Parts: sequence; C-alpha cells; structure tokens
Amino acid sequence: MLTGARSEARTPVSITGVNGAGQRRPTMKEVAARAGVALKTVSRVVNEEPNVSPELTAKVQAAIKELNYTPNESARMLRRGKTGTIAVVIRDIGDPFFASLGRAVELWARSSGSVVMIGLTDEDPERERDVCLEFVARRPDALIMAPIGETQEYLAPHVDAGMAVVTIDRPAHGIEADAVLADNAGGIDQAIDHLIRQGHRRIAYLGDDERIFTARERVVAYRAAMARHRIDVDEDLVHLSEPTTEGIGITLSAVLDRPEPATAILSANNMTTAEVLRGMAGRRDRVALVSFDDLALGDLLSPGLTAVAQSADVMARTAIQLMTERLPEPHRPGRTVRVPVKLTIRGSGEIPPSS
Amino acid sequence: MLTGARSEARTPVSITGVNGAGQRRPTMKEVAARAGVALKTVSRVVNEEPNVSPELTAKVQAAIKELNYTPNESARMLRRGKTGTIAVVIRDIGDPFFASLGRAVELWARSSGSVVMIGLTDEDPERERDVCLEFVARRPDALIMAPIGETQEYLAPHVDAGMAVVTIDRPAHGIEADAVLADNAGGIDQAIDHLIRQGHRRIAYLGDDERIFTARERVVAYRAAMARHRIDVDEDLVHLSEPTTEGIGITLSAVLDRPEPATAILSANNMTTAEVLRGMAGRRDRVALVSFDDLALGDLLSPGLTAVAQSADVMARTAIQLMTERLPEPHRPGRTVRVPVKLTIRGSGEIPPSS
Repeated sequence: MLTGARSEARTPVSITGVNGAGQRRPTMKEVAARAGVALKTVSRVVNEEPNVSPELTAKVQAAIKELNYTPNESARMLRRGKTGTIAVVIRDIGDPFFASLGRAVELWARSSGSVVMIGLTDEDPERERDVCLEFVARRPDALIMAPIGETQEYLAPHVDAGMAVVTIDRPAHGIEADAVLADNAGGIDQAIDHLIRQGHRRIAYLGDDERIFTARERVVAYRAAMARHRIDVDEDLVHLSEPTTEGIGITLSAVLDRPEPATAILSANNMTTAEVLRGMAGRRDRVALVSFDDLALGDLLSPGLTAVAQSADVMARTAIQLMTERLPEPHRPGRTVRVPVKLTIRGSGEIPPSS
Repeated sequence: MLTGARSEARTPVSITGVNGAGQRRPTMKEVAARAGVALKTVSRVVNEEPNVSPELTAKVQAAIKELNYTPNESARMLRRGKTGTIAVVIRDIGDPFFASLGRAVELWARSSGSVVMIGLTDEDPERERDVCLEFVARRPDALIMAPIGETQEYLAPHVDAGMAVVTIDRPAHGIEADAVLADNAGGIDQAIDHLIRQGHRRIAYLGDDERIFTARERVVAYRAAMARHRIDVDEDLVHLSEPTTEGIGITLSAVLDRPEPATAILSANNMTTAEVLRGMAGRRDRVALVSFDDLALGDLLSPGLTAVAQSADVMARTAIQLMTERLPEPHRPGRTVRVPVKLTIRGSGEIPPSS
C-alpha cells in the first residue's frame, strides 16, 4: 500500500524521526574531551571565531575528524542569523529547462557551502504559495523562483527581513526582486521570419496557458511579427492551453483538418512541442514545425527539430549572479536581465508549404 | 562576470544574507499583543501543544493570519528534535530517471508538510560524501540516496541517531538502510532473449562505468544470459565506461568497423543509449538496438526505441513507503525491494542481423 502523495492533507504526522531522542551522535563536549581543550574552544573553532591559536585549532580539528563530529547547523544558524540554504521553486524538475536550472543552482550552492531546497508548483498558484511559505519558514538566505501566482506579496515580510528573491523565466509582482527572462519576443520574431522565408503564411500558433507570463509574451510577439509581415492572424489557428496529449491532438485536428489548413506550426514551449510531435506521428500531413525551446533528442528526430533554444544554463548563472549581488543589499530595486535565444535549423522548420 | 561554480573552493563567504539583522518579520510577541493573549499561549498554539482552549486558539490563529506571521522553523526544530526535511542525493536531476525520483519525493514531502533538499553527486564518491555531510549537518529526518561511494559508513553516527536512510537504484554499504533496486538481471535477460529471437548472436554490450552498482549487475546478467544461450562472449564487444559523445563514438567504431561486426547492440542505460543514437545517426549500418532504460521521446524516433523501461515512479513510491516505515524504527534491519522492469517493442530492437 503505497502512499497516495497527491491526495493527502498537509499533516505533519508522517515525519516522526527520533532525532534528538536517543542521541548517539558525538557531542561538542566529547570533542573537547578528546582534544583536551575547553568546550568554549571547540565552539570557537566550529564557528570560525577569531583568537584561537593554530595549535588548538589543529587539535580540535583532529578530534572532530576522529569522532566523525558534525556541528548541528540548526544551532549554528540561530546564532549566526543565516541558514546557508537557497530555496528553488519551479514548475517541475521533469521539465528539462527547469532541471537545468536546478542543476546549475545546486552546483553553485555546493561550491559555496550552501544547500538547496527544491519545491515544485506544477503551475498552480496555490501550490506556489504553500511551497514558498513552507520554505521561508526555514529562513533561506535566498529564493530563486519561477512565479505563477498573480502576486508574490505574501513573501514581502521575508524580503523586508533580508531574503534575496530572484525570479527566472517570469517576473514577480508585489515584491522587490530581480528577474532573469528569455528574449521571448526576439525568439518568436526569428521563428516567424524563418517560416515566412520558406513561404508560409498560414502559421498556427500553439502556446501554453495564458496564466503563464512567457505564454502571454510569446503570443503577443506572434501577433506583432505577423502584423509586421502584413499577415492577418486567423484566430482559429491560435490555441493557448496547458499541453496534454489529448488537448494537443484536438488542437492539431482543428488547425489541420479544415478547408484552409495551417502549413506551419509554431509550438511555443518544450512540453507543447513534445505533444505536437506525438500527435503528428499519427498523421500523414507534412507540416513545418518550429519549436520555442529545444528538446533533449531534437537532433535525433527525422526530420531534426528546428528550434529556438533558450540557454537554461546562462539564465541560471545570471540568476545566481544577481542573487549574490543582492544578498548584501536585499532592498535594492529589482533589475531585469533579458537572455538571448538562438534559432537552430535542423529540418522540421524547412518543410515548404506546397507539400 | 558569472561565478565559475565548479572550480570554486567550498567557502561559505558567498551567502551573506542579513536575516537576523534589521529583522522586520512579525514576532511572536507582536502576535500575542494583537491576539490579546500571553506569549506562552502563542507559543503553545504554534507548537500544537495541548491544553489551549478553542477560543484562544482561534484568536491566536486570526492574529497570525493578520500579521502574516510565520514561525521560525529553526527554533521549532531545535525544540522538537526533528526538522521536517528529507535529503535526496542523486546522480543528476538532468537524468530523467532521477528527475522522476526527485519529483515523486517532493510531491510526497509537500503532502506531509516536509521540504526536500536535493544534492547531486555526478557519480563522484567524494562529492557524495561532501553533499551528504553538508546535508546531515542540517539533521534531515530521512535521506534518500543513490550511493556511488564504496561505503556510506561516514553516515553511521547519523543513522545511529535516528536518521532513516533508503537507497534507490543501488544499495548502501556500512550502514543499516533499506534499498529499492530495479530487476536488472531480469531486464537484461528479456533484452538478450529478444535479440536472440531475432537471430542475433554477435550482440555488443555497452554499459556504464563499473563503479556503478547497476552497471556491474547488468554486465554480469549479460554474460549469464549469453551463457544460457550457449554463446561465447566476444570480449571485444563488451565496453564499460562513462557515456560521453566521443567515447561512445569510438566504441561504436570498435564494435562495428571490424571483420565480424556486431549485428545488435544492448545499451545498458539511458545516457549511453542517447549517445549510441547520436553516434548511429552518422553511420550507414542498420544495427539492432535494445536499450535498458527508456528515453522521453523514444516513441518518436525512427525506428522507435525498443527499451527495457524502469518505473522511476514505482521505485520512488516504494522508497517513500520504506522510509515512512523506517522513521519510527530507524534501527530495523535493512530491507531490499526489487522492482520489475518491462520490455517495450518499437522497432529498433527488431532489425534482423542480415541487413
């Protein structure tokens, strides 16, 4: 009988570890005894306080190693007023973009002696709030998040208290925070220009739920790019919804099984693209496809996937940079950095409209 | 000037949040004043202690809501001796198998009011030790890990003190822990039986670094399955190494560009398979391929990928189940659960040897 994780209420009963009871971890006192020094000296060495001689420090460190002693960070963080933890709140680590982001933050955190707490929103504003409040109760030094809720005002007391917030992929609202965003408009422009250069005019646009900032920015850019090319947008070719296998199947049928079918598809995020590919595999039409977001095996498909690639790694490193600059000045005004994207041509976007 | 995360020393200087200084979060005292109750009453409500009347509890909860007060978990965890955190230490969240695992644990943790700390080893035993020691210093209630080091004895004091350890994908050594493992031998048996049924006898085996438990189990199973079919293993067709694009390219050349080339490849993990597909894309041979581990878009390749799929989700839920059973009895003897795997036939494994 495995636990049905999703349906359970948020009761804290399941964690019943006996840490604290029956404690058999070596204590600071035992380290002091082994090193033959005063307890206070061990405490000073552990907390990296000044005025301990190199000899005493070496003795204490030797005893710490022998006994396999690890200081209790809960106690240390209360004394120091910082926790050495970074909270990361993202859509899903199953999404390669966010997996890369989480990975980059984790690498950096390790190099700085910090640890990462990761929470997932699944693009649900209530979950975002729950996860963030659960995290901030543990007083992370910084929070890196991809907001989905309309406002992040609920974090204001923590930002006021010095927590650095940097958002990625979308901006925050109601709090002072830095933001690292992709050049969504530039990427859509490149995709539309490319498809029009191949002769397409009936270009279907399949995007994510409009609650998502990037989904809104990209569809606005699509309309602007079409207008720039003096092409009227056929509203029946514009579909915005959460990408599911069933939903995208219906959408494909709507844009392709009609008197004047779309000859090209601009798929505006990686999850939509995966479902478009799955849906097209069962059809006979040869339709051009450009994806905003690359896929891990996009180069191995036939034809290869023509895609506007975001650099999750550059975005993550930019977020970390902003965070380190923000930590000493948590009240500085928010900055926004746009990260460029790049069109990679592999075949799927070069299918002509005639076929 | 972005931080070069990998190369930096483990100095804690980068985290310089000012939590604690200039504190403007509402305090417990302010909650007491707003609710018109004693400080002790607020403390009792926050810590869910008995003997507080429903009226007082309601007053305190209203004040907590109005002031947006969140209790300091660092202080609570010291009082209670448990932290409500689960540490997860895995290879990489960029690896879909481990991403699914992390996701399942995060979902469960949220449902139980806990948070997840995630650390990555990149299959480096020293990193594993560093990450785990960084985490256990924060006293997680449980640790779910995919061990790579020869021994996890360094965790023994924490296991003795009540931390529940459950491993996934590989067992631990030197500590009492539960393990959730895939049926590696059964999966390899299915793959070899399938290829031999198509008429193959020269089946190359490409696996991961032998330091990894699953890599060892699977190559042993390959030899056993070949012996069962009375086929002598050609050692020149057996290659075990960390999967890199360059390395797999050389390996493919070694097993295919020879007088008696392999007619089929058994690729023993998802990362090796991705590199084999990449390498084969540049070649003309039609070689059968069966992968141990499925790929996210394996159904969209041409031909589709024939794969032995592990259920990361079932493995994760099993690990969580073992963890919840272990938490109240952290010293119980370790249990091992084997999770079945399943061969999915899609085309790549059905290419005959003659072509």
